[in-house]
Amino acid sequence: MSAPIIAVDAMGGDYGPRCIVPASLDCLSEYPSLHLILVGQASHLERYLDSHQGVDRSRLSIVDAPEVIGMDELPSLALRGKPQSSMRLALEQVRDGRANACVSAGNTGALMALARHVLKTLPGIDRPAMAAAIPTERNPCLLLDLGANVDCTPDNLCQFAIMGSVAAQVLGTAQPRVALLNVGTEDTKGNQLVKQAAVLLQQVEDLNYQGYIEGDGLFRGEADVIVCDGFVGNVLLKSSEGLARMLSRKGEVLFRRSWLSRLQGALAIPLLRELRAELVPSQYNGAGFLGLQGIVVKSHGGAGREDFQAALRNALRDIEQDLPQQLSRRLQPML
Amino acid sequence: MSAPIIAVDAMGGDYGPRCIVPASLDCLSEYPSLHLILVGQASHLERYLDSHQGVDRSRLSIVDAPEVIGMDELPSLALRGKPQSSMRLALEQVRDGRANACVSAGNTGALMALARHVLKTLPGIDRPAMAAAIPTERNPCLLLDLGANVDCTPDNLCQFAIMGSVAAQVLGTAQPRVALLNVGTEDTKGNQLVKQAAVLLQQVEDLNYQGYIEGDGLFRGEADVIVCDGFVGNVLLKSSEGLARMLSRKGEVLFRRSWLSRLQGALAIPLLRELRAELVPSQYNGAGFLGLQGIVVKSHGGAGREDFQAALRNALRDIEQDLPQQLSRRLQPML
Repeated sequence: MSAPIIAVDAMGGDYGPRCIVPASLDCLSEYPSLHLILVGQASHLERYLDSHQGVDRSRLSIVDAPEVIGMDELPSLALRGKPQSSMRLALEQVRDGRANACVSAGNTGALMALARHVLKTLPGIDRPAMAAAIPTERNPCLLLDLGANVDCTPDNLCQFAIMGSVAAQVLGTAQPRVALLNVGTEDTKGNQLVKQAAVLLQQVEDLNYQGYIEGDGLFRGEADVIVCDGFVGNVLLKSSEGLARMLSRKGEVLFRRSWLSRLQGALAIPLLRELRAELVPSQYNGAGFLGLQGIVVKSHGGAGREDFQAALRNALRDIEQDLPQQLSRRLQPML
Repeated sequence: MSAPIIAVDAMGGDYGPRCIVPASLDCLSEYPSLHLILVGQASHLERYLDSHQGVDRSRLSIVDAPEVIGMDELPSLALRGKPQSSMRLALEQVRDGRANACVSAGNTGALMALARHVLKTLPGIDRPAMAAAIPTERNPCLLLDLGANVDCTPDNLCQFAIMGSVAAQVLGTAQPRVALLNVGTEDTKGNQLVKQAAVLLQQVEDLNYQGYIEGDGLFRGEADVIVCDGFVGNVLLKSSEGLARMLSRKGEVLFRRSWLSRLQGALAIPLLRELRAELVPSQYNGAGFLGLQGIVVKSHGGAGREDFQAALRNALRDIEQDLPQQLSRRLQPML
């Protein structure tokens, strides 16, 4: 494989270049063959780069993008109104073969609309889905969709399941167990969407479909791929993050309550730090858009420097596996 | 208030009378004025009672119900096919004024269908909602619906919000902040259901409606009442339980890894136990059905002895507050 090149939407997310520029530089140090294209307001980006020592500019270029898409901008406006946005130009780097992947922490809806428009979906796929690995008691589980599609049809869910299964195989799980998220595991349970999707899934050949799974089954590691609509997936993801953060904070308060508890806490700190790394796992940041003719990774909007690096690493992994090409090849007989 | 009487569906849940009978006896000891009616297969229940010493039968009676509704039985069959089920007869105790509340750990769908049929909804309410208090970084938050209504209309969500707001007031929160669960807080975000419900909610008078809230906002305690459809609420609840259990188990493994970690862990055990009580908070078991002409509390199907007691306590609290009467009175001007 030639040296991987990632186009980075340097203006996206809650912190923009302030966080994305240093995260990008860290990643360049970590991967000596990696090239990055920072896309954004060039004068801005140059200023951030100037404040860092010893930047290897032979592996870092800038593409000037005068426009920025706001975090609450309507996808339709982002699509029609801003031809020079950092997000769009970063995606165009991939379309035009100048980059192997695009990473953005910007507005999810706008990224979905622009990615579909600029890169197009794979043959047979109506809508791309956002997928990420979620930690469980056993192996991580690929959960999709995480918010790119808040209104889904049964066909959408069925395509997500097939894409998720193929992606899990490409990323190393043989015969991934695929399940549909529901409020119960019995056949009679579920809303209309899920019941109709289940009928379709039972008919797909070469899919190791296991039936319904409940929210707690996810964290017990009972499936390798779990499918839901983007509204449900997004609520699940964000509420899990919120719960983990709440428990971590409550633990801190508890360990600071008295002299005794401070001593007990101090002794246990190394272990609690490890547990906490599981609680708010920045290594899990970065959800891939599956089903596009190109690699697009969405970072959490509120991602910090380390989190954004994790998203860049995910993009690198997908480049190494040549994910869209593999998806396209293996999807054809299943759709 | 005269002595409170609770009708208990003694056959429901994953463990049935084996768990429900001892939990009921514990509750009778805890509340000296409480009366319980155990509804179920009388010979079965007598056998379980015989194995306990000093049962005060003046406060405990049995109603024989030869039929049991299975955990995966269709609600429509439970409604039409089993006139003598423990669930139905327990609800009829409330309808006929022989009990002030009914508690069941049985099949949610069947309980919903039977409760609507036997007790009827309050005037102006189309469908009852399941609501429970969820622990947050600040005060507990009333979340509804938790799974009784997996396909909702915008009108349903609007009624849930009003009922939730009134219930929170009755239970002690002045001016409860009401929010609609969504994938973002901006106006442009959300699926069709949520967007249409938001339009309705903005028009309700005397409702302290705050707009959209995300999954992490729930655990930060940013609202007192959060509304969602039953599919989303059930996934949120079960995945949170699963995540909390996973973290608790991972913590245990960590603290057992080496001699040093065992020592560190042993010193921190009292604190970790406290944190764990927050992790899997059995005191939060028991979701009330709001919108019925009577009190019905649904316990988790997998509830153990202590969890089921918590559900009985919730029913007692609702009896003390005369919740359905108060709801009915305060709902009228708002609907």
